[in-house]
Order: sequence, then C-alpha cells, then structure tokens
Amino acid sequence: MMAVVKTSAAPGAEIREVAVPSPGPGEVLLRVLRAGVCGTDLHIWSWDRWSQGRIRPPVTLGHEFVGEIVELGNDVTTPALGDRVSCESHIVCHHCIACRTGNAHVCENTRILGVDVNGGFAEYVTVPAVNCWRVPAGISLEVAAVMEPCGNAVHTAFSGPLSGCSIAVTGCGPIGLFAIGVARAAGAAHVFASDVSPYRLELARSMHADAVVDVRSESLAERVSELTNGRMLDGVLEMSGHPSAVRDGLGALRMGGRMSMLGLPTEPFELDWNRLVIFKGITVHGIIGRRMYDTWFQMDQLLSSGRLDLRPAITHVMPMERFDEAIALLRDARAGKVVLVPWGQTS
Amino acid sequence: MMAVVKTSAAPGAEIREVAVPSPGPGEVLLRVLRAGVCGTDLHIWSWDRWSQGRIRPPVTLGHEFVGEIVELGNDVTTPALGDRVSCESHIVCHHCIACRTGNAHVCENTRILGVDVNGGFAEYVTVPAVNCWRVPAGISLEVAAVMEPCGNAVHTAFSGPLSGCSIAVTGCGPIGLFAIGVARAAGAAHVFASDVSPYRLELARSMHADAVVDVRSESLAERVSELTNGRMLDGVLEMSGHPSAVRDGLGALRMGGRMSMLGLPTEPFELDWNRLVIFKGITVHGIIGRRMYDTWFQMDQLLSSGRLDLRPAITHVMPMERFDEAIALLRDARAGKVVLVPWGQTS
Amino acid sequence: MMAVVKTSAAPGAEIREVAVPSPGPGEVLLRVLRAGVCGTDLHIWSWDRWSQGRIRPPVTLGHEFVGEIVELGNDVTTPALGDRVSCESHIVCHHCIACRTGNAHVCENTRILGVDVNGGFAEYVTVPAVNCWRVPAGISLEVAAVMEPCGNAVHTAFSGPLSGCSIAVTGCGPIGLFAIGVARAAGAAHVFASDVSPYRLELARSMHADAVVDVRSESLAERVSELTNGRMLDGVLEMSGHPSAVRDGLGALRMGGRMSMLGLPTEPFELDWNRLVIFKGITVHGIIGRRMYDTWFQMDQLLSSGRLDLRPAITHVMPMERFDEAIALLRDARAGKVVLVPWGQTS
Amino acid sequence: MMAVVKTSAAPGAEIREVAVPSPGPGEVLLRVLRAGVCGTDLHIWSWDRWSQGRIRPPVTLGHEFVGEIVELGNDVTTPALGDRVSCESHIVCHHCIACRTGNAHVCENTRILGVDVNGGFAEYVTVPAVNCWRVPAGISLEVAAVMEPCGNAVHTAFSGPLSGCSIAVTGCGPIGLFAIGVARAAGAAHVFASDVSPYRLELARSMHADAVVDVRSESLAERVSELTNGRMLDGVLEMSGHPSAVRDGLGALRMGGRMSMLGLPTEPFELDWNRLVIFKGITVHGIIGRRMYDTWFQMDQLLSSGRLDLRPAITHVMPMERFDEAIALLRDARAGKVVLVPWGQTS
Repeated sequence: MMAVVKTSAAPGAEIREVAVPSPGPGEVLLRVLRAGVCGTDLHIWSWDRWSQGRIRPPVTLGHEFVGEIVELGNDVTTPALGDRVSCESHIVCHHCIACRTGNAHVCENTRILGVDVNGGFAEYVTVPAVNCWRVPAGISLEVAAVMEPCGNAVHTAFSGPLSGCSIAVTGCGPIGLFAIGVARAAGAAHVFASDVSPYRLELARSMHADAVVDVRSESLAERVSELTNGRMLDGVLEMSGHPSAVRDGLGALRMGGRMSMLGLPTEPFELDWNRLVIFKGITVHGIIGRRMYDTWFQMDQLLSSGRLDLRPAITHVMPMERFDEAIALLRDARAGKVVLVPWGQTS
Repeated sequence: MMAVVKTSAAPGAEIREVAVPSPGPGEVLLRVLRAGVCGTDLHIWSWDRWSQGRIRPPVTLGHEFVGEIVELGNDVTTPALGDRVSCESHIVCHHCIACRTGNAHVCENTRILGVDVNGGFAEYVTVPAVNCWRVPAGISLEVAAVMEPCGNAVHTAFSGPLSGCSIAVTGCGPIGLFAIGVARAAGAAHVFASDVSPYRLELARSMHADAVVDVRSESLAERVSELTNGRMLDGVLEMSGHPSAVRDGLGALRMGGRMSMLGLPTEPFELDWNRLVIFKGITVHGIIGRRMYDTWFQMDQLLSSGRLDLRPAITHVMPMERFDEAIALLRDARAGKVVLVPWGQTS
Repeated sequence: MMAVVKTSAAPGAEIREVAVPSPGPGEVLLRVLRAGVCGTDLHIWSWDRWSQGRIRPPVTLGHEFVGEIVELGNDVTTPALGDRVSCESHIVCHHCIACRTGNAHVCENTRILGVDVNGGFAEYVTVPAVNCWRVPAGISLEVAAVMEPCGNAVHTAFSGPLSGCSIAVTGCGPIGLFAIGVARAAGAAHVFASDVSPYRLELARSMHADAVVDVRSESLAERVSELTNGRMLDGVLEMSGHPSAVRDGLGALRMGGRMSMLGLPTEPFELDWNRLVIFKGITVHGIIGRRMYDTWFQMDQLLSSGRLDLRPAITHVMPMERFDEAIALLRDARAGKVVLVPWGQTS
Repeated sequence: MMAVVKTSAAPGAEIREVAVPSPGPGEVLLRVLRAGVCGTDLHIWSWDRWSQGRIRPPVTLGHEFVGEIVELGNDVTTPALGDRVSCESHIVCHHCIACRTGNAHVCENTRILGVDVNGGFAEYVTVPAVNCWRVPAGISLEVAAVMEPCGNAVHTAFSGPLSGCSIAVTGCGPIGLFAIGVARAAGAAHVFASDVSPYRLELARSMHADAVVDVRSESLAERVSELTNGRMLDGVLEMSGHPSAVRDGLGALRMGGRMSMLGLPTEPFELDWNRLVIFKGITVHGIIGRRMYDTWFQMDQLLSSGRLDLRPAITHVMPMERFDEAIALLRDARAGKVVLVPWGQTS
C-alpha cells in the first residue's frame, strides 16, 4: 500500500510503498477514508527539536483519520466489520493510576498514532479497537476525519463553565476555529476570537464568532470590555501557545474566571502571577488530548445534533499524495484544516 | 393607587385602592411596568390548603414584575433612580448559614413578595434594593416581567450538565416552556418536552423543543430511546409535580443521569428507589427559587445575547384590572404565561 | 478444591468439591486467602425473591475476597504472579456509554462475582486481571478481604463534600460501620450514627462515631440539632434501606445538604418531596458499587496511611466450612463483618 | 485609646493615642482582645514598594483580631452586644458581579482593615457587622485572633480535593503551618511540608506534617516519590511565593493534580508550561482572601470539633506595645505566628 512515511532523521517525508499491516489482538485494520493534517505533522516534517527527541524513523505519519473496519484482530467484539470509525490517537496503558481513575488522557505511557507508532497517512492502518468511535450520523467524511483535533477543542472548552458564559478563543488555527464552534454549540452566550492573521480571523467569522479581535492593532482586554459592558470574560480557550496571548487572555478575564491552555509555547515564559492569576482568583487548566471517552461522547452529541458544524474550518481537501503541498499551506498559514484523500479514492 | 389585593380568607381577590408605599432603609419604590401571573397566584386566588396556612390577608399579590425606580430609601446607592429593574421575589435574612454560604435561595427566613409581603400587582411596590436586577439590554418589558419564573427554569437547568446533553422537560407550563428555551440556549444537544395537553405541547414546539411527547398516548422512555438511539437522557427538568412524570423521567434517564425537580407534588408519593434511583446511580436535585444572584447573571447573559427568546411562551398580555380573567385562563390551561399591564399604561 | 456452592433453587448452600478453574485470556487465578460474608449472601442463602430472579445455580458464592495470584491467563501483564490482590466484584463490559465515560459502576452489562459467575468462597477463583487491586501495605488479610464492601462506603461518602462536614450514617451494618470510619478519616468534622440495635450502636462507637442515636427512642433530627447547635447535617450516608431512616435523614439535613443512598429498600416507599427534598434544596445520590477505580485508589490511600482502621467492625473470623454458622450470625444481627478462612489455612 | 499607627510615608510605625472610633450604620465597635501580626504588617512597617503604592497614612494597622462587641451601629441586628467575634478583614462592595455571585473574595472594590481603613492593633476598632464571625466554642483567644490567616489556609486547601489525598505545603510561614493542620484535619491521607528553614520545618513537624523536606538539600519530587511509592502528589498548597517552590511543587504533582497558589511572588517569573502544566493536565488555582463566608463556616467546623489545633504554630504572645519587637521576630524568621495583647489586658 502507499503511505506517507518519515523515513529518516531529516526534514521532509516520503511517499512510498509499505506492507499492509495486520491487526494484533484487540486491534482492527482500517481502510483509511480521510485524514487531517496537523501542526504536529509540520513539526515532524520540519524535523524540529521536539521531533528529533521523539520520532524514531521510519514511521508512517497521520494521527487524525476516519476509516472503515476491514479486519478484526483476536478478541475484538466491537466495533464491527464495515463500521466507519474515527480514531482516538492516544494509545494508553490502562494500568497506571491515571488510566485507572478516568484520566487516561494523561497516561504516562501514552503512545501516539503517527508519532510513536504507524499512523493514518496510508491506505490502511491498525488501531486498538478501543480507540475507535463510530462516526455520528449525518456528518461528512471530512468532518469525521478531524474529530481527533476537534476533540482537543471540546476537551479545552468543557474543562470549565460554558453555558451562558462569555468566552474568548485566543489563536485561530484549526483547533481554535473548532473551539469557536464548540463554545457556541455548547451554549456560550458570547464567543470572541483573537489572532494576528486576517485570513484566520475571517475563518473565525465564518465559524460564527460573535466578534473577532486583531491583536496586532487592538487590545483584547479593551475590546472585551466594550463587548461585555465591562463584565469581561468567564473563560479563555488558549490555542496559540503565544506568551502574549496567555497574558492578554488572563488580563481579559473577570475576577474568578478560567484559562484553559491547550496551545504549546515554544519556550518557557514569564507571568506576573500576582496581577494576572492570584489577585484575580483565576483557575488555569493545562489541557492535553481528549478525555477518554467523555470528550468523544460530548463531541458526538454536538455533531450528530447538528449544533456543531466544522465545515467552514476545513478549507482544503486534496489527495494524500500531495502531502508536501498540504505542509506548505500550513507552514505559510494559508489554510484552516487540510484533509487528505488516500490513493484511489475521490472526494 | 390601584392594586390586586387578597382581602380575606376566602377564594378570590379584590381590585381596590390602597396607599402608595414608602421605601424603608435599603429599599426602593418601583412604578410597576409589567407583572406576570403565576400558578401560585391561582393557588392563592383559589384559597387552597397551602394558601390557608401561609397567607395573612390583606396582602397585595404579584411576585413577578418589572418596574422603574422612582424613589430611593435611605442608604441605597445602587440601583439608581430611573433604572428599569426586574425583581428577585425572595427577601432573605442575610444572617443564616444558608445566606452566609452562597445559598440564600434556601434561606430559612425567606419572605416572598406578593405572598408574605405586598407584591407587584399594583401601580407601585417597594422592594429591597438588593433584590433589583437591571433589565438586560434589548428585551421587551413583557420578557423583563417574567425573569423571576424564568430564573426558576435557569436554576433548574443549570443545576447539572447541559452542554452537549440530551435533556427532557417534563411539564410544559410557563416555567417548563422557559426551561425548553433555556436548555437549548445553554447548549443542550437535544431538548425534548412532555405534557398531557396538546395546547401546551404546541407551545413547547414554538419554544423549539426538538421533539414533544404526549404522555397520554406515548411512553416517554420509548420515545426517548428512539430519539437518542438508545442513549437515553442525561438530564430531566421536572416542572409538573406529577408522580408519573417523575417516574417517567427517571425511567428515561441514562445510568448516572440527573433529575432536577422544581415542580411541587400536591401529595407525598411513592418511588421504586432501587430500580429508578439507586441501581441507576441517579442524582436528584430539589430546586427552589433562584441562586442569588448567579442565576440572574446567567439569565442576563442568555437574554441579552439573544440566545434565549421567551416571547413564544408569553401568550397573553392584558390589563391588570382583568386579573380574574387571567386567573381563569390559567385555571383552564388556556394560556402559557400571562402578563399584566398596570392601570394607566398601554402595552 | 472445596467451595461454598449454591447448588439448587432453594434455601441453603452446599459445601462441595469442585474443579479448580482455569484463567481465560485477561484473567488470573487466585488462591483465596480470606473472604467476607455479605448481606447479599444471606439473601441468596435464604433464596428470597431477588435471588430467585437473579441466581442461576450452580454458582460458587462470595464476592468479597483477597487472594494470591497463582496463574496468569493469556495477555495478562499486570498484576504479577505472587501479588496479593483484593478484588472488584463487578465485571463490566468496557463498551457501553457508562463504561466509556468513567462510569463503569453503572455498566448495564455488569456481571457480579459470586452472583452471576463463580465467586471467592472457595480455595481458588478466577477474576479478570483488571479487577485486581494490589493490597495496600500494612493492612491485615482480614481487612484486605473486605475492601469491596468498604469501597461501597467510600463511594457513598465521597459522592459529596466530607471535609469539615457534619455527617450521619443511618444504619450500622458492616458497610455503615465502615462508612463511619471512612467519613472520619476523610475529614468530616462530626460523624453521627443511627440504628435500632444496641449491639450495632456499640460497634459504631468502636468505629469512633462522635455520637450514636438509637432511633427506637430518640429523634434523629432533635439529637442532631443538639449536637450541631442547630446547624444540622451537611450529609447523610444512608446504609439501611429503611424508609424511616431515609425520611429521618432528610429531616436532619441542613438546607442544601446531600443524601447519598446505598441501602436497598425492600419495597417502593413514599416521601413528602416538597418538605424533605424540594423546599430544602437537597441533592439525593443513588449509589451502587464502587467507582472503577477511583474509589479503590481513595480507599488505598486511607488504608495505607493508617487513617482508616476497619478492624473494630470485623467481629468474627472463622473457617469457610462454617459458612452456615456465619449466615446465622448475620441473620440474627449478632455480627459486624464476618470473614472466612478457606480450607487448609489458619487465621 | 492606644493604637499602632502608620503615621508617615516612611519605615516604622508609631504607638500613639487616638480617638476611640464610633460605629456607623451597619457597623459594630469591638474592644480588641487579641490580634495577630502578619507578613503584610512587616511590608507596611518596612515601607516597601507595595506599601508605598497602597497605604495612605495615618492608618491604624492590624487585620487579624478577635474582639468583644461593645457598641452597635444603626441597623445592626446581629451579632449582639457582648459577643466575641473574629473578623473577616475584607470589606466588600456587595454590588459588583463578584459580590453578587458568591465570589466576594475577589470583589474589585475591596478595602482591607488595617491597610485601607483603620484596623485592630488598637484598644478598639469598628468593623461592618457582616464581617464578624462568632468565635467557635472551646478555642482560645489566641487561636480566635488568627482565624483570618487560618482562613487563607482553609480557602487554599479547600480549593481542590483533600479527602484521601497526598498534599504538600510549600512554605512553612504561619499560613503554611496552619495549612498543614487544615489539610490533616480535612482528611488528607499524607501531608508533607517543605521549606528552607530548619526552625520552620520543626514547627511543621509540631503541626503533624507526615514528613518535612528541606529543599536546600533535598529534591521535593524525589522525596515525594519515595514517600508515595511513585504516586506523587494530588495537590500542592503553595504558601511561599518562591518561583522554585512553584516549580518544585508542579514537578512533584501527579498527572492531573492541582496547585493552589496563595503565596505572592515578589517578581514575575518564568515557567516551563509544557512540561509542568500542559502535558501533565494540571489545574492551577490563584487564591486570595477567604470565601465569604463558606471558608469561615468550614474553619469553624474544623476548630470547634477539635480536629484542627493551631496552637503549635503560635509561637509568641506579647503586649501590643512591643509591636516593633514582633516585627523584628518576623523579619528574622524567628517566629511562627505572633499574637499581640492590647493595653491593659493580660494573656
């Protein structure tokens, strides 16, 4: 079969033919139908410092995908052959304290599809049966392909109050765009979005942000104050990893508000803890992955009810063999979410 | 001034002239602009057993209203003269443990406007300044008049998870109708409504219930199972006080779901606790009043953002002097919410 | 091997020789070291209505036990041969929504050891590896044997606030006795216990209840009012299943308190919902089983730190072959917890 | 009367005669019985940058005290003449959103006794009646005097799970010492304490810390790993404000743990957010003041039940006229909590 493989400890990735994998006990074999490209894929392609420390080539990339089950490993009773499933990318140990107390998203022994083990940028992929989530009725393959990153948005949003709240999303990359839709669908009264890219802010508008803030020229706190009559924000969903976005977000929170941080800073950074966190009685949540599988259940409800529509954030659908082109779109910030179509399929 | 007064320990109420009240320290005088009629007013009018034990005539009725502040008592710094305010009807002691720990809605010393002290079915009324909530921008006087009962719906809905949830409202009187709108605005993925009255179920549809269930001919659990593909309900907002609605609601909950009970049963009733509560791991919330003033803040956000529109549930607006007619509409279940316009004002 | 087997659809149980079981994939074989006798065993022995509907003889009884791992089934990587483990008795499906969202304790497909499949009143028993919990350091085999019912107490207690709270335990059977210790160890400021048996109230004292109430002669609400200077209870842990205990407990709660119900009523019963639940803003929790495995983790912490000592509640340790005698002690309320020692071992 | 007054914008404080204040409406006059000295008093005495920006001399110092009510202002119905009360030091506006939604501890208009208005280092002081908390039965005047800082410890500890948890307190000044006692009384399974001062670590032992860690020579994470068999901490109560304590504390938390920060850093500082917060799924709480009055209720329960004993942390009781000496003890870290006795009283 064809696959996008990180073949060596250097920038780039290679499209090559590899053997179709065979599902082990508790695993299923999927024919991949669609796959999403993530910023992490760009990091691996670029062979940045994080990648150099983590990736052990050769590995097939791709951790966001939907597929059809075409073979069951031993002991698999569910899901069934022919089911269309979207996949949780974190393969967890089921034995550590985190796993045993409902916190598998912070399992210390996590291995990630497309990072630590072969992923879904290929015609076929094996995944643990337990990592499969049946695709909700009524959504497109493209949307089904990006439930994994959408789950990051749901996890971040649902880590604090949403109903009736004023929420800002700082950073309008794909997960930020999804978070705008999630916060609205989940009952936030006002959803604001900030970024430095007019292109991304336009996408934020298309996801129905109530207002967008270009922080190159506007103060987030000032705009929020105007928009909320001085009430400020109940919550910030931090998707950028930028120190200034974190500080701006904290500054725009009301006393007692919450900041949920998913975006990964590239370096340690400094904070005026007294003014921004302690005196304000702020709660800061570090967020990683998706709650297994509460997040998937919540996301399924939002998607299958039609309350949440991710399509405006999916700006490109292209053949998987044009992976390098997809990477270039991401690198140049000329895309929202890019979805890939495997060989021999048409979108 | 003119007022609707319970003058004697017998059925009925009297429209009569009374003195304009004077605000004491910490109080304000309101010119009443609109007032809502509640089932409680019907109980008092009918002089049922509860009324006989609680009401001490003469008392001016009316505990749901909006007014304009026309005079400030001593020590009142906020709100200001001229402000339009909707009113919390529970006057609390501020000294008991409940009051001192953020639970004033269950203050043991609560006195209620229009029940224990003179209320808002009059041209003027005095209320504690702290009970006033500035009317959110952009809503009508009729909607502002019914924020108190809408607050019951908000309190009930917000007592458990809503975002992405499947919720049923059992009982589609005015508060049930409001609750449908609240649950939707607050991010429930599916909102179902049940009742025995086709008129009320039609109003439920107009509040955008995703499905309505006529429990005279349909099983709530069966319909919910169909509508949710067997997932059943995450929560029930019980607004009827009927034993069968409580049992049906518990039966339609998923394992681990929640039942929030605001409706008041007329008599004690029996439950199969093992099957309906214990084996299912259900949480039952008894709900009374509105959280002071978290509920008002949440409601303000939902109303001022336009996410929540109560107007379809307000079926009648009529002069206050036609109070007896309003009572007849309620008694005969020919109305959703009825709003009254005081003397000398036009709607 | 020898085992206590329910051999026929009639009262009683039989001690007989049966084959040593073999662990299937994902299972382990335990040599049983100690086992606790539960009220459920008495129900099965007596062949009551519940048993008639549930039990399919022949089945080896016993769902509370500790053992040493002597054989591993396929695919078992943890725990290890030689480990001493106490066992969760609920075998769950891992596939239903409850299981997938951290609520396996209300899995709809639960099978129970010693009820639906062969249990631990035997020399050997097979259990899923995932149901094993390594015995905390420093506790006796007798205590390790009763972690399953102690987990019921922990689950009930931890379903609401404990730290600094005034808590009552209604019903001082073994789980009630454990709950007294749990509530104290977990930081309740005052722990009261009620029952109708002087023998059990004496055991409650030995578990360090701050006060005991004999509800044959005393009013729970009155005594609680005296003991708390009128503050009343923050929470009730209901362990009796008696309607009067539920009503008394609700009556002794403060406004806004919580009632956690584990005890199983024998029949449906009636409640004055308005007075006892709704007007007071009470939260009622239906409790079943143990959270998997949060409850076990919490219990492990309490036991291994020495904060919780269950020994005063374990009144009898006797050979397993004297099972009928143990049943008689329970039936006559002449015991706290009874622990059995399998054949060929000495206590 | 005599008082300790900050008389000028310079280091030091002056003991001088001032007029006995008169209680305004809603206020009471207290005869001060005991008062605690706080690090904030040292800051004001030293006239540091914070003091220069905040303090407007002349002002009587002292924000921790207990007194007897000797005069009631207008409109005061409770507490009563002769009551002994300990005082909440935050005078809040009751009008802002924080105040109206149960979060008065982050009221934006807070004025603090002994900082913004005259405080309790005097023979008499006026305070709002609502700020008074009746002294729990059975505790000494010295303990009653320090309920305000103990409330900081309670607020910090109760901002996350405690029952059955492994908790570390970083920083063993007076509030850290109180927090050790609070965490134990509130049901933590293990309470560890860290500091750099052998004197303070000895006081931590006297408050019954299960282990103390001298972070000059030991790694907190390593010691915690040993003490918990690798389970690490469920929570950190950060009382020092030192960047290294924050980092050490985060590093010693288990995945998904919580860090509650009360200590005030003197400068902004840097954090490796990815490694310490985001990848670990940590929740960080900024803590200020005491929840009004949930914290006081919880503290009252812990103190009046005898579960919490603060006495080992109170190392000095001395006449108020020796205030400069008390300041010197604090400055040189030769004291735990210092309590002052006003003129004309004996301890």
